[in-house]
Amino acid sequence: MPADRGSDPGRRGSTRRQFLFGGAVAGVGAAAAVGVDYAVNNGGSVAASVPLNGDTVVPFFGNHQAGIDTDAQANGVFIALDLRPEVDRDALRRLMRILSDDAARLTQGEGALADSEPELATTPARLTVTFGFGPGLVARASGAAPTWLRPLPAFGIDRLQPEFGDGDLLMQIASDDPITLAHATRMLLKDSRTFATVRWTQRGFRQAYGSVKPGTTMRNLFGQIDGTTNPVPGTTDFDSVVWIEDGWLAAGTSIVIRRTHMDLDKWDRLDRGGRDQSIGRFHSNGAPLTGTDEFDEPDFDATTSIGFPVIPEFSHLRRARSDDPTERIFRRAYNYDDAPSGDRVSDSGLIFVSFQADVDRQFVPIQRRLDELDLLNEWTTPIGSAVFAVPPGCARGGYVGETLLS
Amino acid sequence: MPADRGSDPGRRGSTRRQFLFGGAVAGVGAAAAVGVDYAVNNGGSVAASVPLNGDTVVPFFGNHQAGIDTDAQANGVFIALDLRPEVDRDALRRLMRILSDDAARLTQGEGALADSEPELATTPARLTVTFGFGPGLVARASGAAPTWLRPLPAFGIDRLQPEFGDGDLLMQIASDDPITLAHATRMLLKDSRTFATVRWTQRGFRQAYGSVKPGTTMRNLFGQIDGTTNPVPGTTDFDSVVWIEDGWLAAGTSIVIRRTHMDLDKWDRLDRGGRDQSIGRFHSNGAPLTGTDEFDEPDFDATTSIGFPVIPEFSHLRRARSDDPTERIFRRAYNYDDAPSGDRVSDSGLIFVSFQADVDRQFVPIQRRLDELDLLNEWTTPIGSAVFAVPPGCARGGYVGETLLS
Ligand code: HEM
Ligand code: HEM
Repeated sequence: MPADRGSDPGRRGSTRRQFLFGGAVAGVGAAAAVGVDYAVNNGGSVAASVPLNGDTVVPFFGNHQAGIDTDAQANGVFIALDLRPEVDRDALRRLMRILSDDAARLTQGEGALADSEPELATTPARLTVTFGFGPGLVARASGAAPTWLRPLPAFGIDRLQPEFGDGDLLMQIASDDPITLAHATRMLLKDSRTFATVRWTQRGFRQAYGSVKPGTTMRNLFGQIDGTTNPVPGTTDFDSVVWIEDGWLAAGTSIVIRRTHMDLDKWDRLDRGGRDQSIGRFHSNGAPLTGTDEFDEPDFDATTSIGFPVIPEFSHLRRARSDDPTERIFRRAYNYDDAPSGDRVSDSGLIFVSFQADVDRQFVPIQRRLDELDLLNEWTTPIGSAVFAVPPGCARGGYVGETLLS
Repeated sequence: MPADRGSDPGRRGSTRRQFLFGGAVAGVGAAAAVGVDYAVNNGGSVAASVPLNGDTVVPFFGNHQAGIDTDAQANGVFIALDLRPEVDRDALRRLMRILSDDAARLTQGEGALADSEPELATTPARLTVTFGFGPGLVARASGAAPTWLRPLPAFGIDRLQPEFGDGDLLMQIASDDPITLAHATRMLLKDSRTFATVRWTQRGFRQAYGSVKPGTTMRNLFGQIDGTTNPVPGTTDFDSVVWIEDGWLAAGTSIVIRRTHMDLDKWDRLDRGGRDQSIGRFHSNGAPLTGTDEFDEPDFDATTSIGFPVIPEFSHLRRARSDDPTERIFRRAYNYDDAPSGDRVSDSGLIFVSFQADVDRQFVPIQRRLDELDLLNEWTTPIGSAVFAVPPGCARGGYVGETLLS
């Protein structure tokens, strides 16, 4: 319930519509998007009036790209492409025009141009497509790369597998409907095929739409409530954390994707007390160890009767929170659970995703602190890492990347 | 809309509740399960009354196992296990007691025994777990195997990959929520680990719950409406097609799983007319080529002005439909879309799943006819094949498999 979300004043200020569908929907086309109007009467018959969630549309055109301040959809695919050697600035422009056009249509429930299965596009279910540019693409465009647009510095905890790292062009494609998602992904890949090859693909999921109350914080596969402390879309706080202010990336942002393996078997052996301590929050309801409600403000100064901090120094909460209020990020993660091999019963983890205006200034200091000390490292291992510049959105007739390419 | 479902008299006779949740829910606990009661008022605030879909429960105990006559959930995992060499009849009994207990709890929204993440069990979202026994398991139990419990005969169209074939114990686990599904899958695998190893895993999906009107026939990744002609759970017709009548399998059934690769690129090159002809139904709305509505009865005798059958002899509809009304099956397929390798833009297909009382008498003749002639074979290739006996359900205190093992 929104009234419970307590301590975050920004969140209090946002509307229910923003909770339901994220900020982007509150713009153009929002009227049509106020969905979920199932009316099941007692006899069990469904009223015909329903705008089903499948019909809910997130606008493609806008100041910012969608899929960032959009309330995260149930299913997400992350694909990194490598540009073919012959792709130059002109070709890049063509590519981004085509992909933007595909995304503009598909997200609105229409088939892509020359879509041979347009029927699979008719239930967008909040489909969004978000593009990110790697250093290679920006160089190919002879653009000015922000200093942070490069692989992250090496961290001691990293066990990176090259098959989940880097790339020239990122597509983050997400929808509440997995069939829609599969189709949109394929259309975008088909149209990029002559320009680029697939470097890596990561598929993830969150709670299904309609499974839990809108606005409920996700639990990850450790069972932790994950996403509590996060800037709230639609607030000036969010804007200052996420959006870049000048250059061709103005109204854009950056995305960091850290594929992080989670050792569920080892985690299972940890008792409740250990779980609470490792995060600094109660596993049961996500409240800080100094509070009772998920959104209570943690008290890092509180000590136990024998003088130890109640929220341990080594806890993820303590380590992830900076004393510098500009060192913050917007997290929008997906879980993954791939088919295990051999005797393992799962191959699971988190596709950690964060958006921030400046990777070096905001993300890196946090990751560095977690690298130095974070009890959670006992059970988690970064196995993939990638950074992309996320250009601003575009207006009808334009295309994503035009501020770099035109 | 149910009233539109026209020509199938059985379907007309079933209740809305059956459409929403499948037959199984109409039993014990149904009152709590009449879900989807989101009431979104104009101001956009969600009424607190909601029984969310996450709370919807399909009973585990019953005459039949759940997950067969249950309206198919959005996400499904199929796992085949190989028993370890030392597992004998006694060990099998222990295994099935443990797994039945896990399933009974998890499907009702409780953690498994010694579940270390019980929070991930609290939104079952119609979770079901269905067990099937392969020939190896029945032999290990010194049970009487039905004659059809063996690998299917070889078909000319088959290009079977052993990594998707056969197995001793099948678990079909399905839920509308992917997090719930991942957790339940892991709990069941953990508890089977000392008894068995994973032979293969297949993950699939259908339209998300709430995406389309309940009762809408799924579209597969070719964009075809897939599942139109199908016995309707809750009817005597369904019962006679699906349930076995005697022996330890009484009130059980059989499951055939055919992993079938679909060549989407090749399919894309086929025009609308070719698509309609290949199936014998209009791609657009699924109506037979002799009709206008999806549920119109096909007229196989109708001919064109120049004397050819309107529904071609080589069409999938014509070939799949037998003149013998006992040669019928209940289909409950899932789509798959795995990460493609190399230059391919997709690795997609159908986890074809059918339930029938007798594989040899009902399934094999259909598959044989499709093997001899079916235009659809141009675009589809069976790459995995497995057959399992599906024991009946059990009552509280009992376990699945007790009719074989006790
Ligand atoms: C598998 C890996 C990870 C897991 C399971 C995880 C889990 C969590 C959990 C349970 C919380 C507390 C609830 C919340 O506020 O969301 C949290 C908070 C947080 N995490 Fe992580 N996390 C992971 C990786 C990371 C990484 C790689 C970063 C950034 C480098 C990060 C940054 C943060 C931040 C900034 C917070 C909020 C701290 C605050 O309250 O100020 N996490 N994480
Ligand atoms: C990728 C593989 C397949 C695809 C894409 C596919 C697709 C379809 C489609 C579009 C229909 C028409 C609509 C409907 O009634 O559902 C259909 C009907 C049917 N299919 Fe398939 N199918 C596949 C494989 C199979 C297999 C392996 C069998 C059984 C051996 C089978 C048996 C049937 C039957 C019995 C019908 C109903 C025919 C009737 O109207 O009486 N299909 N299929």
